[in-house]
Amino acid sequence: MRFIHSYECTLCGAVYPADSSFFTCPACGEKGILEIRYDYERMKSIVNADYFRASKEFSMWRYLPLMSIRGTDIGETLRVGWTPLYRTQRLGQTLQIDRLFVKDEGCNPTASLKDRASAVACLHAREMGRPILACASTGNAASSLAGNAARLGLKSVIFVPKRAPLGKLTQMMLFGATVISVDGDYKDAFRLSREAIAKYGWYNRNAAINPHLVEGKKTVALEIAEQLGFHAPDWVAVSVGDGCTVAGVYKGFYDFWKLGLIEKIPKILGVQSSGCAPFVEAAAERRGLREAAENTIADSISVGIPRNPVKALRAVTASKGAWIAVSDADILEAMRLLGRTEGIFGEPAGVAAVAGVQAARIAGWIKKEETVVAVMTGNGLKDPANGQKAAGSPVVMKPDLATFVHWMDQHDKEVCL
Amino acid sequence: MRFIHSYECTLCGAVYPADSSFFTCPACGEKGILEIRYDYERMKSIVNADYFRASKEFSMWRYLPLMSIRGTDIGETLRVGWTPLYRTQRLGQTLQIDRLFVKDEGCNPTASLKDRASAVACLHAREMGRPILACASTGNAASSLAGNAARLGLKSVIFVPKRAPLGKLTQMMLFGATVISVDGDYKDAFRLSREAIAKYGWYNRNAAINPHLVEGKKTVALEIAEQLGFHAPDWVAVSVGDGCTVAGVYKGFYDFWKLGLIEKIPKILGVQSSGCAPFVEAAAERRGLREAAENTIADSISVGIPRNPVKALRAVTASKGAWIAVSDADILEAMRLLGRTEGIFGEPAGVAAVAGVQAARIAGWIKKEETVVAVMTGNGLKDPANGQKAAGSPVVMKPDLATFVHWMDQHDKEVCL
Repeated sequence: MRFIHSYECTLCGAVYPADSSFFTCPACGEKGILEIRYDYERMKSIVNADYFRASKEFSMWRYLPLMSIRGTDIGETLRVGWTPLYRTQRLGQTLQIDRLFVKDEGCNPTASLKDRASAVACLHAREMGRPILACASTGNAASSLAGNAARLGLKSVIFVPKRAPLGKLTQMMLFGATVISVDGDYKDAFRLSREAIAKYGWYNRNAAINPHLVEGKKTVALEIAEQLGFHAPDWVAVSVGDGCTVAGVYKGFYDFWKLGLIEKIPKILGVQSSGCAPFVEAAAERRGLREAAENTIADSISVGIPRNPVKALRAVTASKGAWIAVSDADILEAMRLLGRTEGIFGEPAGVAAVAGVQAARIAGWIKKEETVVAVMTGNGLKDPANGQKAAGSPVVMKPDLATFVHWMDQHDKEVCL
Repeated sequence: MRFIHSYECTLCGAVYPADSSFFTCPACGEKGILEIRYDYERMKSIVNADYFRASKEFSMWRYLPLMSIRGTDIGETLRVGWTPLYRTQRLGQTLQIDRLFVKDEGCNPTASLKDRASAVACLHAREMGRPILACASTGNAASSLAGNAARLGLKSVIFVPKRAPLGKLTQMMLFGATVISVDGDYKDAFRLSREAIAKYGWYNRNAAINPHLVEGKKTVALEIAEQLGFHAPDWVAVSVGDGCTVAGVYKGFYDFWKLGLIEKIPKILGVQSSGCAPFVEAAAERRGLREAAENTIADSISVGIPRNPVKALRAVTASKGAWIAVSDADILEAMRLLGRTEGIFGEPAGVAAVAGVQAARIAGWIKKEETVVAVMTGNGLKDPANGQKAAGSPVVMKPDLATFVHWMDQHDKEVCL
């Protein structure tokens, strides 16, 4: 709160004072998503290299002074963030990239990057005295909301499309959320959530409406920069659904650049599945967004009508990045590759970022000597059915050494090489 | 390596020099499991409160000087350990325990405590020039071996019983392990692994044979003590299968106590499922272990013939702790309770520790004013089928506000209270 300068409408550009409490622009309505602007000169007096050297907070709350909430209760939340950034040399060799890194967001408490937004939402709801939070979600926002709310003694109401994967559904139910499985797609779930939230006055955790959530998501970029020793990589790849995560990634690097903590903002590679690629198609055809079908195994980015288009488009354009689409087959192959070379099991939408890096390298957009980070947004355990598609099946065998030796005689090269 | 004093056989008491390279006692054979003894006086010169104050290593490698491997490649592994220790006040209120904590081992890279042993195994195998590791496993040891081996460019061969849950199986396959699904139970898988390892000379990652693995597992206890400000809790509850994890928990507290870093060793509550409780039954009937049926949803502790009985029994006895059994229904109820009150989703065997604490509190063994830690050993996402049993099903509904309002009129108390 201390360093908020103003709220600015991403549609009409209207500026509102730092103590405003509405989530979207009063003039533009729901599509007038707000951007939170900070007073970076004042922020610099606190947030500098010394601050981070001294900090012993190894979670997303390390970056609390760069956020919009007061955060008085940060000691009570699940431990979100400060996820590992792995230098992935074996994967890099395969993709012919000298310095490739994977940010493993699957290590978050409910196993996805969405915990960063949900933790902020829960603390903010508490600060506003609102004990019930609601959202529409393809699955991860919902399970992270349910978990983070439970931890703080808050209630959650969640609208998911019927196709939400088993792991995510099980999480949110187990966390005690009220879960409405909408007989329809994400668009239908989003619409019903909007109507229900308006009627019942619940705290709105839809990241495309609530501007504070991008401020949580941006911590993934702050961590990447700090984990690289306060350097920006050349490229950061992230998969895109509604567009809130890619917006957060941009905002994080923007903040650190404004504070003089990194020398540049990396090029952002926005990755979608070719089965649902409204941003990629709009960019290729140099036109506005049109509704797309939702037809991909990457459920978290299966979003036909993105809800945060302005911020998402700006992230890629302003960073001089690019949009790219990958097929579901590419994603499954990247899941296998990431698992075998690095021991990281990601869900399809998370590994789409790796598939996107591979495609952009083949296209020559990414150069061999560039430093590249793929943000792997969620754990593969959330979606066991698609994990199985990528993983294949084990060898079933009687517990008998002779049988095993016979099998080995035929397969020893696979086992040992 | 620096502080190993000797290896001691847990069966015959024979002592072997610090540079021994065998895993079990040459005199006793496979059942002669070795205990690694340290020179604590020499260790104290390095490992003291100042050492930990200065350390910036927030992973299990923080405790490398207390381990038996050289660990020259620790920078290349997955980031294992330094998992959150949550003060669980809402859960504590329900269980009537003033200071209750849950150690969430599901945040490890392959989502279970077993990563602590597998990371050690992989580094040790590399140090010994052995590129293929093998084990039998109910699931978690296997998926963690597969992931940690992949990260280091090593190969793994794994023997699992047919009943291994979907999430774990998918993980190990995706990590590129050779997975043999044994048409039998864990006993059969263990036997075949032993024979195959003997024949092919692979590195043995069976924790009940390889004494270095308990030294990895013990880091969970070191973390608990440090996260409590270098204090031992009164009780630590942990579920028990083969007995290696409970042995590791004891060893960690023993080490810190010998170093003068904590004032006592906590009482250890060994928890089993009543569907497979060889330790609990032996303790109740004051007799030796007998083979038990493997009949519980808690697959990770469904071990009819425990492979590390001496160390497991000693952990509970020497700590003045207790053995307790909980039913599968108790475990499912504890899964719901932990999820709803704290936002933590654990697998059955992991949450068995919480169910055990509840049972021991009801029995009056644990007092209200005691400090209690439950070690939650694995993420619930690994076993979606049992997760669903605990979680129940969502409300399915047409995407229509009137329908939702009608439903709310009947259920608003559940949603809002």
